[in-house]
Amino acid sequence: MKYQKGDFLYEGKAKKIYSVKGHPQWVWMEFKDDLTAFNAKKRGAFEGKGRLNLLIANKVFEFLKQEGVKVHWVEALLDETAAICQKVDIIPLEVVVRNWLAGSTAKRLGFKEGTVLEEPLVELYYKKDELDDPFINEDQALLLGAATREEIGELKKQALKVNQLLLSFFQKACLQLVDFKLEFGRSSASLMLADEITPDSCRLWDIKTKERLDKDRFRRDWGRVKESYAEIWSRLESI
Amino acid sequence: MKYQKGDFLYEGKAKKIYSVKGHPQWVWMEFKDDLTAFNAKKRGAFEGKGRLNLLIANKVFEFLKQEGVKVHWVEALLDETAAICQKVDIIPLEVVVRNWLAGSTAKRLGFKEGTVLEEPLVELYYKKDELDDPFINEDQALLLGAATREEIGELKKQALKVNQLLLSFFQKACLQLVDFKLEFGRSSASLMLADEITPDSCRLWDIKTKERLDKDRFRRDWGRVKESYAEIWSRLESI
Repeated sequence: MKYQKGDFLYEGKAKKIYSVKGHPQWVWMEFKDDLTAFNAKKRGAFEGKGRLNLLIANKVFEFLKQEGVKVHWVEALLDETAAICQKVDIIPLEVVVRNWLAGSTAKRLGFKEGTVLEEPLVELYYKKDELDDPFINEDQALLLGAATREEIGELKKQALKVNQLLLSFFQKACLQLVDFKLEFGRSSASLMLADEITPDSCRLWDIKTKERLDKDRFRRDWGRVKESYAEIWSRLESI
Repeated sequence: MKYQKGDFLYEGKAKKIYSVKGHPQWVWMEFKDDLTAFNAKKRGAFEGKGRLNLLIANKVFEFLKQEGVKVHWVEALLDETAAICQKVDIIPLEVVVRNWLAGSTAKRLGFKEGTVLEEPLVELYYKKDELDDPFINEDQALLLGAATREEIGELKKQALKVNQLLLSFFQKACLQLVDFKLEFGRSSASLMLADEITPDSCRLWDIKTKERLDKDRFRRDWGRVKESYAEIWSRLESI
């Protein structure tokens, strides 16, 4: 085996993190079959979900790497349903980019789901389970010590760049990138894109039929969750 | 009578607006005895509340005028429990400035009420009853068409200036300006401070005892609402 899984470090809602023996700068990120929503108040799972998300995340991160985006992704270990990633200090901000309005923001601001935005909308949420990841503004992010003013500027710039790249990437698979959530980490003085980019963290609709193919199918009990994740992978595999 | 009340224009939660005969650039703003909280889900009133708020707002706006802040306030009509104000197009944003954390933000971000802030925190809320005035970020304010990027910059700048002035103004009355909400209006190409500045829209605590003397007494059923508003006015009257 190329790499060896080391000590258990952390378990998240959809992933488990381990060290990598002999490589202190890396982590071993294992994708679970679990699905959660509403801050884990709703829980589910389906067999093969971890593998599908690993395949999708691998395709996305490899594409972003090629395009010059700094990402934590080193390589996927398909047999292990895991990826080798750079070890980073995760910045406790979720950076959400929206191209069409859906979900909580559509509801809060009184817009119909699917309203197109002339400019992508960037939102920050504070990663804190006990507080249900509240929506915050930049001054609040500073107050919370989540990041510096400069880092927030950089996160937003990076998020918008990733958005431009992913919009056309998913379009090739006839998928409309409605919105998505990014997380970033600090590693030896530079910021890099971390966590995952999968149907757990993106809203992806079929461009023509507007069929929802992402975690909203689980969140809203629409069924065919596994089939939708598989559909996304089958479309991405061939591009 | 110096001025004559004209046509009824609009009724808000705590004020009624009329035109002023012969002065199309002005409005007649009548202060009601009503008190509401939680987007008017909770309603109350006390006799003399309109008059107390008028007196307080008059003192505050006359002070701000002297300090060079552009305000809509022309003059108070004490016998009418009303004020003559410039007619403005109200910008549908509530600009909240916080010096200490209290209320919704303390709760959402997990801070103890009364936590002091090193820097004042500015927040925007979208004035829309049907949506319960949601907290928004600047990009959302643009998306909602509430104001331009330049206007938002100006609103924040003005709000921070008003905050500096009011912090020391209230301090003279042994009052701690915990937070407050401002509204602004457009009038012939310039922005001006509008609406009211009263214990309905400010959190004011006794500096020493930290006794709450504002609308939180009504909001949270602490009693002695009328006495607290009267206390604020009696302290401000003499400065």
